[in-house]
Amino acid sequence: LEVDTADEFESLAVSFNSLVSELEKKETIYREFGRLVDPKIRDEVLAGKVNATGAQHHGVVLFCDIADFTVLTERLNAEELITFLNAVLDRIVKTILANRGTVNKFMGDAILAFWNLPVETSDPELAALRCALQMQEEIDRFNEEFREIREKHSPPIPPVRIGIGLSAGKMIAGTVGAEQRREYTVIGSNVNLSSRLQQQTRISQTDLLVSSSIYDAICLYPPELRDEFEFIPYGKITLKGIAQPQAIYGVKRTKSYHPAPSVANMLIEEAD
Amino acid sequence: LEVDTADEFESLAVSFNSLVSELEKKETIYREFGRLVDPKIRDEVLAGKVNATGAQHHGVVLFCDIADFTVLTERLNAEELITFLNAVLDRIVKTILANRGTVNKFMGDAILAFWNLPVETSDPELAALRCALQMQEEIDRFNEEFREIREKHSPPIPPVRIGIGLSAGKMIAGTVGAEQRREYTVIGSNVNLSSRLQQQTRISQTDLLVSSSIYDAICLYPPELRDEFEFIPYGKITLKGIAQPQAIYGVKRTKSYHPAPSVANMLIEEAD
Repeated sequence: LEVDTADEFESLAVSFNSLVSELEKKETIYREFGRLVDPKIRDEVLAGKVNATGAQHHGVVLFCDIADFTVLTERLNAEELITFLNAVLDRIVKTILANRGTVNKFMGDAILAFWNLPVETSDPELAALRCALQMQEEIDRFNEEFREIREKHSPPIPPVRIGIGLSAGKMIAGTVGAEQRREYTVIGSNVNLSSRLQQQTRISQTDLLVSSSIYDAICLYPPELRDEFEFIPYGKITLKGIAQPQAIYGVKRTKSYHPAPSVANMLIEEAD
Repeated sequence: LEVDTADEFESLAVSFNSLVSELEKKETIYREFGRLVDPKIRDEVLAGKVNATGAQHHGVVLFCDIADFTVLTERLNAEELITFLNAVLDRIVKTILANRGTVNKFMGDAILAFWNLPVETSDPELAALRCALQMQEEIDRFNEEFREIREKHSPPIPPVRIGIGLSAGKMIAGTVGAEQRREYTVIGSNVNLSSRLQQQTRISQTDLLVSSSIYDAICLYPPELRDEFEFIPYGKITLKGIAQPQAIYGVKRTKSYHPAPSVANMLIEEAD
């Protein structure tokens, strides 16, 4: 809008132009909000659809962390460490988003993601398990690409390894906290289980452990889908803080599994 | 703005009114953004002041969680559990904000907060330690107020206990993650230490453990301030994932400590 010489038009135009600039700020705030909490959670909260009193939902939870990350924190300086961490997390986040997951939280070098929350997604167990295997592939690619940088250090920085725990079932989902400060969170024994499975990957010397609820859900799919995965039973294991011993499984991709294209250069469009 | 009958005024007024409604949305988005990530972090990120490549800062980190929360998850239904959790977290969050802390993350029943990050705050160790003691007082008040509700259950729900770990020192602060999804996070051995101290509160049968860096910082204050606190040395303890044995201290309030007023009905104004 051009500023007119007539007084009333002028003041209107000035207000209008400052409104337009405020609107641009609105878009920036909206976009940055989605980056810091996940666009799906942002939109559900803004639409008033998140139950502040909590509700039971079926969800799939993925816990992931970088093995021996504390060793890295002692060997790299602040800038190197964050650059390295962000390069790893970038692959992981893109893989989760490409597989329709919600990235709920970063805790240092750990990530909590889920499926079927806060919005319904089809085939959540299948999507999450494919995601977990693709995350391992992405880390292999990362280790190859960063080989030179890793080997420049003395002693060389070993390849990154990530441990993933995956479980499914009923859980409580909602915003917890106070009126002034709250977060979308999942709570319950099925959530704790996936965190315990992730910790167990270090003890079991494997990269991915899933609960029997994941195994059972995958078994219901037709052969051409379930044959993508080889389940390795680890027997019933007692996990800290979980009353009953749990049947747990390692998972590997089989020849029927079609490797996903790298997410390295993938552009993930945010649905507006 | 009234809609005029003249055509050009009319279309201008319609645009203007829809702009005003968009602006109201902007305020809602901005406010909700601050609730979900902390207003200080929101504003630093929007101002482009958060170093995406990470930087070393002096910070004070507080880890807190509710003892035996898993027992509660098995005894209460979804709605009761979230109501109970939110009543506890409401007190904790208000106490942290009233003591100038930043509430960084909720993880189920746990909270991570810090001082001197993302913006400088004066006397961060003193503010954090006073906060920790006030949090314990608030939980005592909560247990009294909820006594009737707790005792209605059979068997009665025992009083809530929270465990707090507090440490200070250099840490890496910045946004980690990917372009599409990232979070403001602190990383480093001083961060891990406060998490380990919190876990140690269960083993040491105490409610609050602090590092020697907190003890040393408080000792530099004049007597009338440092005499608010009684430090109980627990000796040097080896903590999981931390190379050197650490001198750790329990802390109690003394007679010189002036009990803070309850935050229950406190209204915390957001600085705009």
